[in-house]
Amino acid sequence: MSETLASIGEFGLIDRIHRIIKQDSVPQAGVRLGIGDDAASFRPRDGFEILVTCDCIVEGRHYLSGHITPHDLGRRAMALNISDIGAMGGLPLYALVSLGLNNDTRVRDIEDLYQGFLAELNPFGAGIIGGNLTKAVGAVFIDITLIGEVEVGKSVKRSTAREGDIVLVTGFPGEAAAGLQLLLKGVPGHDLRSHPLVRRYNRPSHRAQEGRAVGLSGLATAMIDTSDGFLGDLGHICEESGVGAELIQERLPVSDALREAALQLGKDPLELFLGDSDDYELIIICAPEHVSPLCSAVKAVSDVPVTEVGRLVERCRGLNLILPGGMSRSIRAGGWDHFMASNK
Amino acid sequence: MSETLASIGEFGLIDRIHRIIKQDSVPQAGVRLGIGDDAASFRPRDGFEILVTCDCIVEGRHYLSGHITPHDLGRRAMALNISDIGAMGGLPLYALVSLGLNNDTRVRDIEDLYQGFLAELNPFGAGIIGGNLTKAVGAVFIDITLIGEVEVGKSVKRSTAREGDIVLVTGFPGEAAAGLQLLLKGVPGHDLRSHPLVRRYNRPSHRAQEGRAVGLSGLATAMIDTSDGFLGDLGHICEESGVGAELIQERLPVSDALREAALQLGKDPLELFLGDSDDYELIIICAPEHVSPLCSAVKAVSDVPVTEVGRLVERCRGLNLILPGGMSRSIRAGGWDHFMASNK
Repeated sequence: MSETLASIGEFGLIDRIHRIIKQDSVPQAGVRLGIGDDAASFRPRDGFEILVTCDCIVEGRHYLSGHITPHDLGRRAMALNISDIGAMGGLPLYALVSLGLNNDTRVRDIEDLYQGFLAELNPFGAGIIGGNLTKAVGAVFIDITLIGEVEVGKSVKRSTAREGDIVLVTGFPGEAAAGLQLLLKGVPGHDLRSHPLVRRYNRPSHRAQEGRAVGLSGLATAMIDTSDGFLGDLGHICEESGVGAELIQERLPVSDALREAALQLGKDPLELFLGDSDDYELIIICAPEHVSPLCSAVKAVSDVPVTEVGRLVERCRGLNLILPGGMSRSIRAGGWDHFMASNK
Repeated sequence: MSETLASIGEFGLIDRIHRIIKQDSVPQAGVRLGIGDDAASFRPRDGFEILVTCDCIVEGRHYLSGHITPHDLGRRAMALNISDIGAMGGLPLYALVSLGLNNDTRVRDIEDLYQGFLAELNPFGAGIIGGNLTKAVGAVFIDITLIGEVEVGKSVKRSTAREGDIVLVTGFPGEAAAGLQLLLKGVPGHDLRSHPLVRRYNRPSHRAQEGRAVGLSGLATAMIDTSDGFLGDLGHICEESGVGAELIQERLPVSDALREAALQLGKDPLELFLGDSDDYELIIICAPEHVSPLCSAVKAVSDVPVTEVGRLVERCRGLNLILPGGMSRSIRAGGWDHFMASNK
């Protein structure tokens, strides 16, 4: 029988986690005190601001335990925090992992989960310096706080976009939404976990390297990751910056894979592109004259395409989609809302 | 009918929380970007290390929602994080609050909860700079990450105590444990929430001012808060520092209130003092010649008594209690273990 938390206890589990973190981490600069005291401690670098974000995922809400391996779950939970630091133009440094677990959680799964966390942190020389373990009442949850750094004054915000700026997006939003729909629909006798779009959902890529390049270029007026869906997050930029936006439908990077999946699902690919999804792409805003150098800055570090999809307009014009014939259609910034009655 | 999360939604709730944070916070130094972007950002002070801790409390595990007001719950959740920063000799600066809520959670309760958080943060000029809201599957949880600062090299650890050092403790450990037992036992027709020991459980005091004074004095060789119970946390110091400890039973500050409650509960007051409790007192370790100046340093900022209760000995001697007659009794460092089968 597999070892469970009930058999090794909290302090036994803490020892196991320490061992994995010691074994599988790369060395981290600046840490003065890691796991094992009342608080962790690090020495910030001169000339840098500290960035800090937290994101929580709950079993049955944000992932389906039968459909994702613990390792991928760890990667996913960490990637979405890394995405937030990247969307500020910063670099991840240190994570604190707070877990709500059950007595019957398998120890091996927790070890795999931590290896997933570290697989995402190691490329940045980042690591886990603290956390908390508790018994959940109900579903397992993984709450991560990620600390990063960015040169003083170089962080890229949501609130600083200007009318007339261009809207760019990385990659192919909507693919993760299609992956989730495929998983939920299922194909009898098929393990869909290796389907490319299901992989996009279960192991989303962050664009932290790309975001960092954008930040260092100093050319973007605003940036956000698409964690609330493309339209939801473009809506956040519009609201915070006091502008509207016009998207050119023909320019939206709807991938062939997304079109094919949409067909299979009987859905509109555009809806999947614009709506709630778990792609962690970046929406980047810049002045028209900076589009080309900004794209070059990203290209220097990444193969991920950056596509120009529209521009910012006066606030009073709201959010509009310019259809192929030139007609304009008003679209509403939704974004995932965890509590509204319709999402019950 | 009271407003619930289902009726105002996630973004509605975020707006309410922003409003309370704006209204009820004191100004915080160093914040460059608060709530409302992909990440928060602050500028660390030269010559300081950053401290960071996180602690999560789950409804039904760490608190009983019928027995504590939302305001006190907020204070409690924040106080236990402040305690961790204080136990390092540091000062709290910025909190990130991650909540797992249900659709039927009352908006008013969340507002009260945040006012409780701020009531604990404001005296330090500390504030809330970020967080996350999600729908829980099961019980509500409150996961707080608290960031603090301490002068470089001044943090007080668990691992640096030495044989021959003296063991000091603040306040009266065990009172919160007795408060919880009283709550669980109940007295028909009585609301016990105003009972002094129940107050100690529901609204625990941290000793961050005292811990800060200890840190600044530079006189302690180790320090820890008693969040795993007095014996559990003394055990952490012994294990991390490679020492044993000898406690003098007659010197343990068992309060009259604790003795009275123990009688009422049919329990040994010593067991309540040593075992799992929710008092956030400090165990302070220092060289014998530093006891007096260290106590003076604490007295300069606080009325909370500091009591000398024993000394550290060779590791191989383990943990012992010296009884009134001079006999020695071996005691085991337990500490709260969330997962062991016996705690199921």
